[in-house]
Amino acid sequence: MIHNTAIVSPQAKLGKNVKIGHFSVIHDNVVIGDNTTIEGFCEIGYPTALATNKPLIIGNDSLIRSHSLFYAGSIFKDKLTTGHRVTVRENTQAGINLQIGTLSDIQGDCIIGDYVRTHSNVHIGKNSRIGNYIWIFPYVVLTNDPHPPSETMLGVTIKDYAIISTMAVILPGITVHEHTLVGAHSLVNRDVRAGMLVAGNPAKEICEAASIKLREHPELSAYPWPRHFDKGYPDSVKTVWRDLFGNKVI
Amino acid sequence: MIHNTAIVSPQAKLGKNVKIGHFSVIHDNVVIGDNTTIEGFCEIGYPTALATNKPLIIGNDSLIRSHSLFYAGSIFKDKLTTGHRVTVRENTQAGINLQIGTLSDIQGDCIIGDYVRTHSNVHIGKNSRIGNYIWIFPYVVLTNDPHPPSETMLGVTIKDYAIISTMAVILPGITVHEHTLVGAHSLVNRDVRAGMLVAGNPAKEICEAASIKLREHPELSAYPWPRHFDKGYPDSVKTVWRDLFGNKVI
Amino acid sequence: MIHNTAIVSPQAKLGKNVKIGHFSVIHDNVVIGDNTTIEGFCEIGYPTALATNKPLIIGNDSLIRSHSLFYAGSIFKDKLTTGHRVTVRENTQAGINLQIGTLSDIQGDCIIGDYVRTHSNVHIGKNSRIGNYIWIFPYVVLTNDPHPPSETMLGVTIKDYAIISTMAVILPGITVHEHTLVGAHSLVNRDVRAGMLVAGNPAKEICEAASIKLREHPELSAYPWPRHFDKGYPDSVKTVWRDLFGNKVI
Repeated sequence: MIHNTAIVSPQAKLGKNVKIGHFSVIHDNVVIGDNTTIEGFCEIGYPTALATNKPLIIGNDSLIRSHSLFYAGSIFKDKLTTGHRVTVRENTQAGINLQIGTLSDIQGDCIIGDYVRTHSNVHIGKNSRIGNYIWIFPYVVLTNDPHPPSETMLGVTIKDYAIISTMAVILPGITVHEHTLVGAHSLVNRDVRAGMLVAGNPAKEICEAASIKLREHPELSAYPWPRHFDKGYPDSVKTVWRDLFGNKVI
Repeated sequence: MIHNTAIVSPQAKLGKNVKIGHFSVIHDNVVIGDNTTIEGFCEIGYPTALATNKPLIIGNDSLIRSHSLFYAGSIFKDKLTTGHRVTVRENTQAGINLQIGTLSDIQGDCIIGDYVRTHSNVHIGKNSRIGNYIWIFPYVVLTNDPHPPSETMLGVTIKDYAIISTMAVILPGITVHEHTLVGAHSLVNRDVRAGMLVAGNPAKEICEAASIKLREHPELSAYPWPRHFDKGYPDSVKTVWRDLFGNKVI
Repeated sequence: MIHNTAIVSPQAKLGKNVKIGHFSVIHDNVVIGDNTTIEGFCEIGYPTALATNKPLIIGNDSLIRSHSLFYAGSIFKDKLTTGHRVTVRENTQAGINLQIGTLSDIQGDCIIGDYVRTHSNVHIGKNSRIGNYIWIFPYVVLTNDPHPPSETMLGVTIKDYAIISTMAVILPGITVHEHTLVGAHSLVNRDVRAGMLVAGNPAKEICEAASIKLREHPELSAYPWPRHFDKGYPDSVKTVWRDLFGNKVI
């Protein structure tokens, strides 16, 4: 299951049925769970003094797609899935079933909850705090320095069920509260109240997210989104959502 | 012509004079035309169930630059040229002489015409419909989900000769009509009428694109651009343009 | 010091104590200084006719991180440091201790001064002119074509000590003067006067940058930034800054 061109440190701890693809490199300080696949051209457990000897731990049933890079010192629960060419730096903790899109860059020292999805080319600045069931769309940047360059690192906080649309920038120290929708191409320079849609540069409150209707079912609200969308989530999550948000409406 | 470190499936169908670079991988379900070069660190024909066993077909006289990734199931006519690290997913059809810039990401199920150019780091969402002779500049995103996350996929439509400038975002289902110019850093949330310049966040009609003058020839209009710019196009295209847009003016 | 999977041209000129990582390729027309490390999956000295046979020269004490690509024909002084997956094209000249962030793309024919830092995913268009002690943050694009597509290449000029924040776009031919702060997500369509903060789409003058205070020391101005921030600079620079900007205030 290890390609004959892969380079795997004998010190790396690999679970059962781990696959390592062509030309990939697994460094010493790595623990990989059962049934996990590392595709080709990856580098896993890239050494850094900032990891202070902590290993990189990737859980079971995970898939790291080709050309990706993970530094030492982070922990990912089971069912991590990545696109291609992702970069993940040290000292991040992530919950179950994180999905990281192609070209995304997680800068380190982040705390990420369960069932978070980033689409392509998302930049998560150091010290970000990301809750559960969150979606972050292409080219979003979470910043952290209020007066660059400085050593003040005020990470962004994103709360459960929030949606950050394409090419939004969230300024340092901002909190985006639960069930919010940040519109595409917005600059968010103040906290976003729970359940609101904000948009613009700078972003302003437009309305409650719940007032947006589904295109194909205009009698139904598009938010909270778990009422109509649960593709890709396990049954355990869907059951919780049925209790929280009512029976699925479509 | 196949580097001794490349891994090429015996089932892949390679034309005459095909070159495969160092450490590149060619999967089973791939057809590559004559005189085409795949540079180093590429992965071509990446398997996916979404391709439903369709091959990846790359035409003649093409150049795939290093670190690029093509999924199975797409078809490219002759003279495809890419930058480095491009990602192209399944089930896209593209016409002759598509040029894809470094780091660009074509998400699949797209239809792309002839002589389209994307510059670096362009993100073409699933279901996009892109005409002919179009230019898309760096960091542009074509989106598709009107109320993310959902399963509604409303691709963007870009018509012939349109120009999308740097870091514009086009919202789902929007049509950008012929000969338009979308200004840099714009958010396009309504259809763009043929021949107009739009700009801003959200984008507004500014004027006719034709009222923009060339810096170095201020007596001449910069649009339609084929009147003054034909670098990189074959003589067959230049001849058509001379008929359509008059003799080249500079 | 050369990994046994690396491919190094016998014509490349390597200094003392140079390290070349796994699966990296060093082409013919390359000069690498002493104590420089090229990590894995890199391609260095990529041939191009545009380099007109000029070599790629990388100075001493440099670090090129994994998956990076440098074309032939550029010159970098000592202590170049890059992130991962950077792309640097031909005919650029850069001063001492340039730092290029992960995924950044330098398009060629640029002149870059000393001690410049780009963060991740920065796009430096052809013909850019970048001074000294400059910071450019994620997803910034420096453009160059005033009426795309055309052959008019009006590069951007950035003067010493300027700060360009996340996802700003600078339009062709613009000059951003000394000690300015360009706000996040701005579209800069006119020259920025020295010492000013500009922000918005399009960007407007907001105030003097010096009127921004440090979060943790609100009695102190955050700009000029060398008064409070000198992390990562050598003592020689810090000494100059103490003379120019007074003793470090924190």
